[in-house]
Amino acid sequence: MAAQAPSSQREIRRRNLSRVLHAVAEQGPSSRATVAAQLGLTRTAVSTLVDELLRSGLLVEQGPTPPGGGPGRPGTALALTDRGPCGLGAEIGVDHLAVCAVDMRGQVRARGEIESEGRNSAPGPVLIRLQRLVDEVTVQAHDLGLRPAALAVAVPGLVARGTSRVVHAPNLGWHDTEIAPALAEPGTEAVPRTGARATDKPLPLIVDNEANLGALAELWLDPSRVPRDFVHVSAEVGIGAAVVLDGELLRGNRGFAGEIGHVPVRPDGPRCACGGRGCLEQYAGELALLDAAGITADGPRDAALAALRERAASGDRRALRALEKAGTALGLALAGTVNLLDPSALVLGGVLARFAQWLQPSLERELRERTAAPGAPPELLVSGLGADGPLLGAAHAAVREVLDDPLSYQATKEGISN
Amino acid sequence: MAAQAPSSQREIRRRNLSRVLHAVAEQGPSSRATVAAQLGLTRTAVSTLVDELLRSGLLVEQGPTPPGGGPGRPGTALALTDRGPCGLGAEIGVDHLAVCAVDMRGQVRARGEIESEGRNSAPGPVLIRLQRLVDEVTVQAHDLGLRPAALAVAVPGLVARGTSRVVHAPNLGWHDTEIAPALAEPGTEAVPRTGARATDKPLPLIVDNEANLGALAELWLDPSRVPRDFVHVSAEVGIGAAVVLDGELLRGNRGFAGEIGHVPVRPDGPRCACGGRGCLEQYAGELALLDAAGITADGPRDAALAALRERAASGDRRALRALEKAGTALGLALAGTVNLLDPSALVLGGVLARFAQWLQPSLERELRERTAAPGAPPELLVSGLGADGPLLGAAHAAVREVLDDPLSYQATKEGISN
Repeated sequence: MAAQAPSSQREIRRRNLSRVLHAVAEQGPSSRATVAAQLGLTRTAVSTLVDELLRSGLLVEQGPTPPGGGPGRPGTALALTDRGPCGLGAEIGVDHLAVCAVDMRGQVRARGEIESEGRNSAPGPVLIRLQRLVDEVTVQAHDLGLRPAALAVAVPGLVARGTSRVVHAPNLGWHDTEIAPALAEPGTEAVPRTGARATDKPLPLIVDNEANLGALAELWLDPSRVPRDFVHVSAEVGIGAAVVLDGELLRGNRGFAGEIGHVPVRPDGPRCACGGRGCLEQYAGELALLDAAGITADGPRDAALAALRERAASGDRRALRALEKAGTALGLALAGTVNLLDPSALVLGGVLARFAQWLQPSLERELRERTAAPGAPPELLVSGLGADGPLLGAAHAAVREVLDDPLSYQATKEGISN
Repeated sequence: MAAQAPSSQREIRRRNLSRVLHAVAEQGPSSRATVAAQLGLTRTAVSTLVDELLRSGLLVEQGPTPPGGGPGRPGTALALTDRGPCGLGAEIGVDHLAVCAVDMRGQVRARGEIESEGRNSAPGPVLIRLQRLVDEVTVQAHDLGLRPAALAVAVPGLVARGTSRVVHAPNLGWHDTEIAPALAEPGTEAVPRTGARATDKPLPLIVDNEANLGALAELWLDPSRVPRDFVHVSAEVGIGAAVVLDGELLRGNRGFAGEIGHVPVRPDGPRCACGGRGCLEQYAGELALLDAAGITADGPRDAALAALRERAASGDRRALRALEKAGTALGLALAGTVNLLDPSALVLGGVLARFAQWLQPSLERELRERTAAPGAPPELLVSGLGADGPLLGAAHAAVREVLDDPLSYQATKEGISN
């Protein structure tokens, strides 16, 4: 009944190819019949789509499906390729840079990490170091028969929605920094980043806040564990949150949603760099926590955090008191969040996951006392991804560029326009 | 390409009939060509749908469209009927009950209101009084050729998602109160509520939180004024909020989203009935505000609020100080909300709209100081609906039951199953 817009046949094909890929990504190796049943498409339609995906190399055949693997007679199992396209994830940390390559099956296949003092450093040199690391990981990936299809970068700061511009990254000291020119153009190093691709198009680039990518990693990598609605709170040097609603990240009008680190918890507290007073970050941020525990934060972050962990584990009263106070502050901010959003679960990530056992008692006490709705407050989950969440989220975001739009990938590969 | 489920032809018809009705509701009187262009349907398809809607009486023809009213040659203008189905909205307030009937064009056509002491009253007698008021307004509507198609009730409390059960309404003292039995069954009064309908089916009933319906009224009645993403904060006796994202209300996991009244603003503040301390409601709720201004809240609410307004207008220092403090508390809770959600706008509704001029300076100061993202905080709008927001939102929610599902309405009217 709908009028056919010129592009709609291609759009339907694009969407259906993507649905087939996502079905196989979620279920693992699947027969055509299983895919057809899950998507509500006919077997003929699925076969046509699968043939196209086999030709383009995104799907491969793996021999017969195990008995009982789905309706209909046993067929050949379809799997995502573990060669060909991969997603590159990168993380710009306050004290390190990391890059990894994840194949279409979601496996980390190559990885590199270097120390990098990011605090108050000019963006240019940091991005040059990151580009070198991207190139190194690209070489590793090439050796495994993989070629990057997209690059996603996690940054500890606010990214303007739909752009690659870091508007404000206080812990790096970056303002209005455009990431794309340094990273998205064809490489000029020994191994051109786009060398395995038939065109000179720049590698598709995604730049996103680290807390957003950490939460998406939780959703994408562990879908059976987290519900479709949750608030993810994580700390690296700063504290960030991500609100996931029905499986989608809430980005906000300008892309700045999730700044829970600056929710006021003590309105008359000390002045914060954001201009406010008594922000959550001043009680539960890494520096506040180390300071309250009497640990110097001048040296490497890892050493300081290990010292805090050791002291807490050995029952050091000052360390325990610091963690208890941080948990209380988190509980205050999260009680407000729960009253406002009524999420199914809260997830603690990053450094907060590492110290969860000491944060939880006071955090949960505040939640119980301060949530207005009757019944138990939402479940409090601890991330299993630890500090790797944002990096893995970035790499998976890059992989999903291919899953979401296989036609573009094919067009690039084949050098044809779509 | 999709396999045809048995119901899908009817579902497509249902959806397209609904899209035609919504297009005419949004645009006002429209030609078939305008509707076709807006919906991306062929003129033939639209003509078939329109004929069905004319036969069922939901659309009427109004003579030729004015020149320049749309593409193509001038045709007959289609309008929603102002007879036939209407939506009934009801409000259970702490000191009053109100009911109104809104026709398909969105005009209030009948209305009734009575005083009703709802504080700590048993639900039964309140609901009997409300049923009588519904019957009275139904009689008025009948006299205008209107018959109620659905009833929506706004309550000052938490409603379990997708049910008609009031889980907790602290200012009424209601707990786990089922609204449906008292209201949704065929009336037994002199004028049966469903008397104009050909079947004995109960009137479809919606029960929702008053803050939710107030925010939806803002979205539905003034779409050019409010953006598609906003947070609406309103006060009657309690303070509630509603989060609207891309034109949809965020309900939360259990239906309890929006409880901004219990966001902690002073963690060591006085104990609140919710179990927390220093909740927003204790600083910016109506009773707190009147108390801080030195006005007794024992008598009728309207008189007390009028007294506060008069004192503020005449420059009474205590009244102004009370409003300034309430604005500060609102600013604290809303700064947290903005940091978390990055909405396009904030809207003050209900009693807050009435006192906006005195609340705004301190509220905006806190917002400016405490929002972490660079740039101006979201725009602060003041509702033009005042205290009527929840009642109008309820009536429009009932009207939208027909706009959303005209097939069900037709089936009920014609006494056939669909």
